[in-house]
Amino acid sequence: MPGDILKVDNFLNHAIDVPFILEMGREIANLYAKTNVNKILTIETSGIPIAFAAAQVMGIPMVFVKKNKSGNISDDVYSASVTSFTKKNTYDAVVSKEFLASGDRVLVIDDFLAKGNALNGLMDIIRQAGAELVGCAIAIEKGFQGGGDELRARGIRVESLAIVDSMTDTALTFRKQSM
Amino acid sequence: MPGDILKVDNFLNHAIDVPFILEMGREIANLYAKTNVNKILTIETSGIPIAFAAAQVMGIPMVFVKKNKSGNISDDVYSASVTSFTKKNTYDAVVSKEFLASGDRVLVIDDFLAKGNALNGLMDIIRQAGAELVGCAIAIEKGFQGGGDELRARGIRVESLAIVDSMTDTALTFRKQSM
Repeated sequence: MPGDILKVDNFLNHAIDVPFILEMGREIANLYAKTNVNKILTIETSGIPIAFAAAQVMGIPMVFVKKNKSGNISDDVYSASVTSFTKKNTYDAVVSKEFLASGDRVLVIDDFLAKGNALNGLMDIIRQAGAELVGCAIAIEKGFQGGGDELRARGIRVESLAIVDSMTDTALTFRKQSM
Repeated sequence: MPGDILKVDNFLNHAIDVPFILEMGREIANLYAKTNVNKILTIETSGIPIAFAAAQVMGIPMVFVKKNKSGNISDDVYSASVTSFTKKNTYDAVVSKEFLASGDRVLVIDDFLAKGNALNGLMDIIRQAGAELVGCAIAIEKGFQGGGDELRARGIRVESLAIVDSMTDTALTFRKQSM
């Protein structure tokens, strides 16, 4: 669609293809096996089903970060300002301090990765909590927008189930990955 | 909390207790066994994990209705204006026409039921689509706000996993239900 929008509302962010999302959860659990992740962090709304599926397979809890548009931030939350490159809006990502703590080994899950602005906000929140980022798992990375490779260049583990390296009105080109 | 707010963010709407939510999904599947429900409808955000869990157990797809605050409604969606009694805001509940159709037998799932405003909006959308409402499943009904009993009096099947009949600063009273 116009504006490099990839329409996925028939399985990922409006209608939910439950068996497919569960398969994504299993794949993420495989990728992060043997890492001692103890908590999954995602951000509302469309990351929630994938995070729920992965948390279920991995047997660990999940927390979804909230998008606060009011500008009022209370003392009992960690927060980070995020500007969405795709949606052209800005919000505060907030999580209650009681649900993220030093000692947590965190896997961040989201549906999309474009410029990486949401992930950078979540990583900022993880740092504020004194928790450890183990890595990120993404359903669809827009490789041509560079956010994922920038994070990898900084040494951050980013696993994307699909990386779209180019998109036109009629074709998607996926990056080959060894999995 | 003040304003009849029940704080459930440690398992239901911020941190997610995945095994407990899955148990809710199994209970909802039991309650609606033998009804030929073919689609679950919920509304973002906190209904999503419960709806996902129930859809997983029942082997049917789910759709989450979006909350549109922009006021711009396109032609390709069904929509209903909803005023949240608890959150004191108004939004348009919208669902793409491609994901709800006549012939669908719909189970509506949500985390909370207070006055029933969100459920009434979802039922309006189901009517617009020419689909059939089989019933509603709710995690927590605030019985003292009357929305659930009003819907039942209209002949609508409403199953709530817990009904809080009164709440004070120190105590919750649950309604006895035969299940």
